[in-house]
Amino acid sequence: MNDPGPITVTDSSGSVVASERLVAGRNGRDTPVYQVRSWSVTAPEEFAYEVQLADGLLDPENPALLDAAGGSGGPARRFVVIDDRVADHYGDRVRDYLTRNQVQHRILRLRVSEETKTMQAVLRLVSALDDFGISRRREPIIAIGGGVLLDIAGLAASLYRRGTPHVRVPTTLVGLIDAGIGVKTGVNHGVHKNRLGTYFAPAAVLLDRSFLATLDRRHLSNGLAEILKIALVTDARLFDLLEAHGQLLIDERFQGTTETGRRAADEVLDRAIAGMLHELAPNLKEQQLDRLVDFGHSISPSIEMVALPELLHGEAVAIDMALFTMLAARRGSVGSEESGRVLRLMRALDLPVDHPAVDWPLLVEAMESTIRHRDGLQRLPLPAGIGAAAFANDVTLGELARALEDLREMERAHA
Amino acid sequence: MNDPGPITVTDSSGSVVASERLVAGRNGRDTPVYQVRSWSVTAPEEFAYEVQLADGLLDPENPALLDAAGGSGGPARRFVVIDDRVADHYGDRVRDYLTRNQVQHRILRLRVSEETKTMQAVLRLVSALDDFGISRRREPIIAIGGGVLLDIAGLAASLYRRGTPHVRVPTTLVGLIDAGIGVKTGVNHGVHKNRLGTYFAPAAVLLDRSFLATLDRRHLSNGLAEILKIALVTDARLFDLLEAHGQLLIDERFQGTTETGRRAADEVLDRAIAGMLHELAPNLKEQQLDRLVDFGHSISPSIEMVALPELLHGEAVAIDMALFTMLAARRGSVGSEESGRVLRLMRALDLPVDHPAVDWPLLVEAMESTIRHRDGLQRLPLPAGIGAAAFANDVTLGELARALEDLREMERAHA
Repeated sequence: MNDPGPITVTDSSGSVVASERLVAGRNGRDTPVYQVRSWSVTAPEEFAYEVQLADGLLDPENPALLDAAGGSGGPARRFVVIDDRVADHYGDRVRDYLTRNQVQHRILRLRVSEETKTMQAVLRLVSALDDFGISRRREPIIAIGGGVLLDIAGLAASLYRRGTPHVRVPTTLVGLIDAGIGVKTGVNHGVHKNRLGTYFAPAAVLLDRSFLATLDRRHLSNGLAEILKIALVTDARLFDLLEAHGQLLIDERFQGTTETGRRAADEVLDRAIAGMLHELAPNLKEQQLDRLVDFGHSISPSIEMVALPELLHGEAVAIDMALFTMLAARRGSVGSEESGRVLRLMRALDLPVDHPAVDWPLLVEAMESTIRHRDGLQRLPLPAGIGAAAFANDVTLGELARALEDLREMERAHA
Repeated sequence: MNDPGPITVTDSSGSVVASERLVAGRNGRDTPVYQVRSWSVTAPEEFAYEVQLADGLLDPENPALLDAAGGSGGPARRFVVIDDRVADHYGDRVRDYLTRNQVQHRILRLRVSEETKTMQAVLRLVSALDDFGISRRREPIIAIGGGVLLDIAGLAASLYRRGTPHVRVPTTLVGLIDAGIGVKTGVNHGVHKNRLGTYFAPAAVLLDRSFLATLDRRHLSNGLAEILKIALVTDARLFDLLEAHGQLLIDERFQGTTETGRRAADEVLDRAIAGMLHELAPNLKEQQLDRLVDFGHSISPSIEMVALPELLHGEAVAIDMALFTMLAARRGSVGSEESGRVLRLMRALDLPVDHPAVDWPLLVEAMESTIRHRDGLQRLPLPAGIGAAAFANDVTLGELARALEDLREMERAHA
């Protein structure tokens, strides 16, 4: 600090680098020159977590749920937060699992919905954690439920003592292949969805398809929309599997009642999860805004604004995908035979391809909102055939209008 | 997935590695064997931010405040959150700075205290952010104030849209050399201090010592306690500077009225900030629990529990440092001449070395609490001479009691 030269690097140790520089004032010649002493702090970090596809999580003999991120030493203790509706089906088995493994525990049932997905729910969970008391190094929070429950619990875990390990156990198909396997947490604030949240790696994600046995058909279709998304933009083989076995998977609820159904469920889940993780992993914190996984998520947020809770998330995504598939067909990047396959598959999966709420004002507003959200560019993933996609930044409102007409004409022809 | 061997690595791409393994059930021979398909997701990340020591931040010609993390393009907009008491002194200058630089702005005055350092304050800030509307890529939040304000604003920034850049401008001495320059954010919950928070790197930290001109003497002493801490455990030269110029620094409020005072302020701030950053940088998320910067923070949290708001944080830290210096003296790792220097310096800096609330039950409770917090070990930084320290895990309650007696005897001799 004593007599530094005008601009010199004077010190470097560990990951703190000190330097000096002179900065001129804004107004040119006669303004002061500011001497700045600065330290650049850099510290490498790593997001790391494991996603496990493992059946029989709630068998008392299965060590997975307790081994995940749990330390040894002392009697085991676990805090479990579970979606109220999931607890109706599985609460007794969870308690039985913990009791038979001699785990001192507290199970918090949380009634969750988009309406109650707020910071208040996070604080309620935090107060229950304080009551129970956990070692943040050895006693991971276990969260069991759908996307909303996992979002709330993930945020609570990421905030509690500036980060407490948590194990995610998704119980819906969307959770198993999408919402449950990433690092995003969040709650709504005011009118804004997921306005508050964090990127926080879970200690582990445990996927057990047997939870799907109690899911209704519509929620299976809802999850299949996100699988279809990954198929369309990255994986032609997955698309073929959905065409061949999609209805069977719904009928069997992914439980593999038949040998064909079992093999299909295995391969579809495997490809969907791997495909999603490969898209997420290089961009966990979404700093890259060109995201293939945003396919189906360009105008669907605006559709959801007007049509929730009537439409499920995956249903709005399907409508979005149908529209942009027709647009890609107009551009020639998807053949007419291929666009026909896409729409047929959506119908086979009991997914809607249109909704009365989709009109001209909504499309205009949706595109503006998406461009704002994507920092000034459209960044629209458009399918290029089946199983590949490219980004477009030059889609006109006229193209959107024609795509909607084409879609509705096909629907009329189909009806 | 088709016919995997029993345990094989089958796939690796980017930072997702798939594998298969078999896991035996808990109960030995006759229990099922679980097949687990898993994906390890890893993604490197980097904490990176710059700490700048720069005077004249609020001069309208100084570009630092607007250049920090701000993008180009379009008219500038900034959301500023400022500690209510700081705004009494500097609010007009902040507004003038923004107006003269043609920045569209909103200035939110927040009345903060330990009592109102809650998630409610974070939500209030978030609602004001929503009202104003910011581009999270180009319009960093500017936070101006003491540690409490920066903790609240940092948490709001880290949560808002899962992370929005923010520029920290500490206005207290503790903020300049400690609370303002790390990555910890947080609010209290229930009876627990900083129970909820994040590790979130600011876009930039701008340190301007001229804010200290309006600080009262007691708050300068409060900050000097944290500087003394860094000196004692890592920097003998800094200790010497405090001995030689500590009182002058308080008298001149670090503003360099005299040449001696200016040089001392430059070197003390420089060494204190660099020393703190070198301790923080390798351990930003506190995964290593042996932390030299925890010196002075072993029993002080318990002292604060009973003596806040009567005692300031730095005052409780000074008492803690005095006690453990006496303990180190008993062990012979600090000479009696050195421990005398430490206590004399504390008095010269108008810091307390004792408090009526410090009694035997408090010490016992404090040690238990600290051991729990440090995952089962004492991890007590004890000075080894002046400017160095080592960790102890074997301090007995008897030693603590004798150290307290020694301290009180020295105090009686001094009085």
